[in-house]
Amino acid sequence: MKTYLDCIPCFLRQALFASRVATNDELKIKEVLDRVGMLIKGIPMTSTPPETGRHVYAAVREITGVEDPFHDLKQKSTKKALELYPALKEITARAQDTLDTAVRLAIAGNIIDFGANPDFDIEKTIRQVLQQKPGVYHIKELKERMAEADEIVFLGDNAGETVFDRVLIETMHKRVTYAVRARPIINDATMADAEQSGIKETAKVVSSGCDAPGTILGRCSEEFKALFRKADLIISKGQGNFETLSQEKGPIFYLLKVKCPVIARHLEVSEGDIIVKGPSNQKS
Amino acid sequence: MKTYLDCIPCFLRQALFASRVATNDELKIKEVLDRVGMLIKGIPMTSTPPETGRHVYAAVREITGVEDPFHDLKQKSTKKALELYPALKEITARAQDTLDTAVRLAIAGNIIDFGANPDFDIEKTIRQVLQQKPGVYHIKELKERMAEADEIVFLGDNAGETVFDRVLIETMHKRVTYAVRARPIINDATMADAEQSGIKETAKVVSSGCDAPGTILGRCSEEFKALFRKADLIISKGQGNFETLSQEKGPIFYLLKVKCPVIARHLEVSEGDIIVKGPSNQKS
Repeated sequence: MKTYLDCIPCFLRQALFASRVATNDELKIKEVLDRVGMLIKGIPMTSTPPETGRHVYAAVREITGVEDPFHDLKQKSTKKALELYPALKEITARAQDTLDTAVRLAIAGNIIDFGANPDFDIEKTIRQVLQQKPGVYHIKELKERMAEADEIVFLGDNAGETVFDRVLIETMHKRVTYAVRARPIINDATMADAEQSGIKETAKVVSSGCDAPGTILGRCSEEFKALFRKADLIISKGQGNFETLSQEKGPIFYLLKVKCPVIARHLEVSEGDIIVKGPSNQKS
Repeated sequence: MKTYLDCIPCFLRQALFASRVATNDELKIKEVLDRVGMLIKGIPMTSTPPETGRHVYAAVREITGVEDPFHDLKQKSTKKALELYPALKEITARAQDTLDTAVRLAIAGNIIDFGANPDFDIEKTIRQVLQQKPGVYHIKELKERMAEADEIVFLGDNAGETVFDRVLIETMHKRVTYAVRARPIINDATMADAEQSGIKETAKVVSSGCDAPGTILGRCSEEFKALFRKADLIISKGQGNFETLSQEKGPIFYLLKVKCPVIARHLEVSEGDIIVKGPSNQKS
């Protein structure tokens, strides 16, 4: 997905939010905004938003000197999600359609996002997604593809959301490789966050090699790209992975919660919608 | 009022909104955002937001080539307000406290703002303000000051809001000089907008000489500054006038609707609140 004009004020908003998480020093925060302001001219509108996100959050890191501003928030998110884990398991176990319910819960977990919209309520979102009419919902095609797949790659998104992904993976009864970011960026899950979530008990966890809040294949490791290319099914969580991969061909199913008006317009759905979107030749 | 860090993403948001009103050319809009991005580094946090607003809207004008992007929206706002004029007069006439009601209606008119928050509903706002508990409400002091005042200067804000101001001025039964912006900026009222609103029938209309979305005394005409200095009462409408004058001493009463979180925090009130704020030595 290309960068839309509306993304540009949002980069500034995100830079401000992240800087405030990192420091109370208003002069340093202003310096971050100065740097991000000067970045704008160099943003090609054909690039994906997470490509700019890399530079925005690098500015936050470099100017504030805080390598991982969201470290504590990520730990809290995961802790909170682990507290919810027994309830998530029970909701899934009791469901008529366990996979459908686990998919919806995994999408609910996608609300834990300190980039797109930090003002979220996870419990409320869980209640909503279980009954919500989805914006796009290729669930039948996902189930069919999953039934046949031997090699499944699951692209994680945020810390805490990882626990919801774990519940989905446990429900799938398939061999899954779970990919995380190569280094801390926003509240995206890294290897440490995946470990804290207990994902390793149910999937092999690998780094994508990418340091952006998404999956930019050109910035991924050779090992990851080989996995990605040979996968029978790729489950891609969240906006950032969608934004960076939406032009890719392949057996990719995007699971996400629509958290900004730009994605809503791009997908022709409403903000807040839940999405399961298969390859574009998929029936709707 | 100084510029707060939150104002900075908002400048970009406003630049985007105004550019879109001016043109459909995405490349030109991007160029405006590029220019505003580069401005950020030069913004002193001690300056008031409308001082930067001047540069932001100048960028929109110069790059899009549209001198007054809000011309049509301003005309529509005034037309709409003139349609409401008979109802506003009737509400005021029937009120127990006509001046209180006219003040509240004048504050309702302040919602017509394509800078701070273009997504407004004027009829809904009118209904709200008539019963709303104000955030700050020095109405008693305003009435006392008004009763004694010979020279009253009324600082207009937006086109359309001018009609609501007209109702207030008609209710005051005082000699009033109504000041407007020297040139089009956002949807702020100019001489032409004041004329369209019929203000001239009830007040003398002058230009402040200022080309910013506020009243920067250093950029006002000598004639206006003389009027301002000798006034017994200055009624200042809206956020922009408040932001630029809040450090000034003098018999200034600020009438406004709080339309952004920055003003809300600065005044220690809530977004949406209505404000009548007299000189700081005023009792609350």
